Amino acid sequence: MQLTHYLGFFAGLLTSGAAIPQVFQTYRTKHARDLSMWQLILLDFGMLLWLVYGISLGDLPLIVANTFSIACYTLLIGMKVRYAKRDTAAC
Amino acid sequence: MQLTHYLGFFAGLLTSGAAIPQVFQTYRTKHARDLSMWQLILLDFGMLLWLVYGISLGDLPLIVANTFSIACYTLLIGMKVRYAKRDTAAC
Repeated sequence: MQLTHYLGFFAGLLTSGAAIPQVFQTYRTKHARDLSMWQLILLDFGMLLWLVYGISLGDLPLIVANTFSIACYTLLIGMKVRYAKRDTAAC
Repeated sequence: MQLTHYLGFFAGLLTSGAAIPQVFQTYRTKHARDLSMWQLILLDFGMLLWLVYGISLGDLPLIVANTFSIACYTLLIGMKVRYAKRDTAAC
């Protein structure tokens, strides 16, 4: 059981951490043209449900991972909205 | 417990389904400039670990959701590689 929890933590670390290079790339390039807004919205809402699921199971990996991801994807939605004009002008 | 599992299924449906509009947008526009390759690789590898985690817990929502997501993100990695030359030429 211990090993399974470590596995969950490491999986959560990777899938949640995955958003970091995306957040940095989007902030650096100031472009979010090729990011699907629907993907970001569905991810954000879905991860909110995973968070509730994790809380109801008392599953710490799910809780930590999804809280962080929600923050990152909300940030990406904000940047996509903010860079929308520049994106339309670019290509 | 039943309700918790339905919640998990719905959460998995949303976060896994979230990849669909991204796959379609990338295929339609033939551009993946603004997608971080690191994000896609980390997601793919992390979801493989979530899949193992789900299997070890016998958690069906985790198993189904992550299998589908792995397929989608592998497809996106393939498209990002394939459209790389076009992406560099465009902007």
